[in-house]
Amino acid sequence: MDRRTFISGGAVAAATVATACGETGQENAAGPAAPAVNRGVKRLRMVTTWPANFPGLGTAANNVAAYINRMSGGSLDVRVYAAGEIVSAFEAFDAVSEGTADMYHGAEYYWQGKSPAFNFFTAVPMGMTAYEIMGWVEYGGGQALWDELAGQFNIKPFQAGNSGHQMGGWFKREINTLDDFRGLRMRIPGLGGNVLRELGGAAVTLSGGEIYPALQNGTIDATEWVGPWNDLAFGFYREAPYYYGPGFHEPGSCLGVGMNRTVWDELADDHKAIIQSACLTANNLSLAEFQHQNGIALDVLVNEHGVELRRFSDEIWTRIGEISEQVVADTGNADAMTRRVYESYLDARNKMRQWGRVSEMPYMVQRERVLGG
Amino acid sequence: MDRRTFISGGAVAAATVATACGETGQENAAGPAAPAVNRGVKRLRMVTTWPANFPGLGTAANNVAAYINRMSGGSLDVRVYAAGEIVSAFEAFDAVSEGTADMYHGAEYYWQGKSPAFNFFTAVPMGMTAYEIMGWVEYGGGQALWDELAGQFNIKPFQAGNSGHQMGGWFKREINTLDDFRGLRMRIPGLGGNVLRELGGAAVTLSGGEIYPALQNGTIDATEWVGPWNDLAFGFYREAPYYYGPGFHEPGSCLGVGMNRTVWDELADDHKAIIQSACLTANNLSLAEFQHQNGIALDVLVNEHGVELRRFSDEIWTRIGEISEQVVADTGNADAMTRRVYESYLDARNKMRQWGRVSEMPYMVQRERVLGG
Repeated sequence: MDRRTFISGGAVAAATVATACGETGQENAAGPAAPAVNRGVKRLRMVTTWPANFPGLGTAANNVAAYINRMSGGSLDVRVYAAGEIVSAFEAFDAVSEGTADMYHGAEYYWQGKSPAFNFFTAVPMGMTAYEIMGWVEYGGGQALWDELAGQFNIKPFQAGNSGHQMGGWFKREINTLDDFRGLRMRIPGLGGNVLRELGGAAVTLSGGEIYPALQNGTIDATEWVGPWNDLAFGFYREAPYYYGPGFHEPGSCLGVGMNRTVWDELADDHKAIIQSACLTANNLSLAEFQHQNGIALDVLVNEHGVELRRFSDEIWTRIGEISEQVVADTGNADAMTRRVYESYLDARNKMRQWGRVSEMPYMVQRERVLGG
Repeated sequence: MDRRTFISGGAVAAATVATACGETGQENAAGPAAPAVNRGVKRLRMVTTWPANFPGLGTAANNVAAYINRMSGGSLDVRVYAAGEIVSAFEAFDAVSEGTADMYHGAEYYWQGKSPAFNFFTAVPMGMTAYEIMGWVEYGGGQALWDELAGQFNIKPFQAGNSGHQMGGWFKREINTLDDFRGLRMRIPGLGGNVLRELGGAAVTLSGGEIYPALQNGTIDATEWVGPWNDLAFGFYREAPYYYGPGFHEPGSCLGVGMNRTVWDELADDHKAIIQSACLTANNLSLAEFQHQNGIALDVLVNEHGVELRRFSDEIWTRIGEISEQVVADTGNADAMTRRVYESYLDARNKMRQWGRVSEMPYMVQRERVLGG
């Protein structure tokens, strides 16, 4: 996904406004909220970078709002606006910074024009998994750096969703050697696109609705999007039958809420706790829903639509890894603030890598080797 | 860990009561709660199966309470009781079922004597990772089955913590072949212990405080506990230098809150939402904290204490896998209710396995292969 994705709208940008009726796992939207007592109702406008109710991304924003509204007994009243309703996806950050809106839900790498450091709070090539970014932000010093970074723009940030691992993408032809990237026209935005360029490909940025026609008319040879759940809905498999996984460019993309710092500072303590908790709840539910839905959608893609799963070769991964580390270092050394974020990120990633490689990773490898199927 | 662990107390069972000051990632305990208005204060007693403030487990209980108290502005007042303060760890479930306490925080497999089905809501050998159990419970039908199961005992359950992957354990001698398990006296409780018995070993159940002396005096040859963070504190490395990972028996242990169903049903909607969200927030923070702390502790164990990391061979994993599937099937077919839980769990695990093996797993493998270090 990328920040231009939702600007021109496309097939999925229906404009229904989601309010306080998020789609969540259990009883989340059940029953009317209790009446607010004594202190009136504080209304908060949440702009988003997503189409209304967009699966996994827009619904994470809905979850944040629904939990805030229910937990506050209506004394906070968050209303969710899809991209384009008040401001475009592009403008969400400035709108909150300036107070036109009270909060946004989006992905922080959309604001890399403000500072390259924002990339690290979503995902970077060869970067952290979902577990890892949760660990770094909450306990490894990430939140303090994020507060400082976003605070320069009068914004208080929170983790509020995670897509989990994102796939490598859909390709019209198999990618067997590094040479196959030469001249490849692929829709892949951001730092992942920088890596593709170093491989000799042509990285293209297209919004969600523009991708399918571009595959169909041959403007592009390949595209990444999110993962099986979201990719299935677009039908990319009809035009590009080879589905490469894993991806290297977004190994666990964090979604974020940014709140106008002045509005935040004036909130009562219970309201602050409610907003924090609603964001972490949405984070948890989001990761859970992607895990569940991707399992189901992958089954449909392979067994009903005959999609061919492929992996990049070790030779390709080695080169991608080298380039990615360099691309991320170039980004991370852009300025003093970004360098502090980059160094904290790298240190945390490497410590958690040591843990992951003796635990989750080899467990999954052995489970697949033994259970097969 | 196991349910007997904390009963006899041991080195870590200091008895300070944690109230509304959980240790969390960001600003969680800051500032006084706003006064409750109009409807008085509802006091809730939370018994736990942990010593007070026990890292990762007791602190997850503290987080649940702290968020509930802060978010409700004091209109809910949860007080946390360590194991043994009101009731023993063993008795927490009955205490909540009967209304002696309002809620517990523990691990559901402690209640396997009530129904074997509870095992599936914590962890089983060769079972789900943390991501996966989150997906199954929230979106894959797990919560409805859990509600039905616990509802038979007048309890409403929630996910409220996750240790992530747990290690294979500490061994005095290397384990190179299946023969090395014959006669091995190992502290490993529950279904993991059943697997060890099938391998020819002697599975022993000891509380946390009993393990170190038993290693020291030769009563046992090996022990599992949790992971680097918790294991380091006990100093097992001094008596059993070979640290095996990954483990097979608890690949992502969910912690749970159980609430007296009558108390739950009578709560206002905002209070219900607050409790749900506090539990998911604690779940998220717990997973994040284990990820962060295990990375740091593993570094200390290897680089300061010279711990030798080892992996079980493919031959051993193959046999462990076969036995585990049988042990879990035997447990899962114990009765009609348990069978429904087992079948739902197995179906969800296998769908999510398909996703994991093209995404997170091979990503981590390639990242380690390429970045090394």
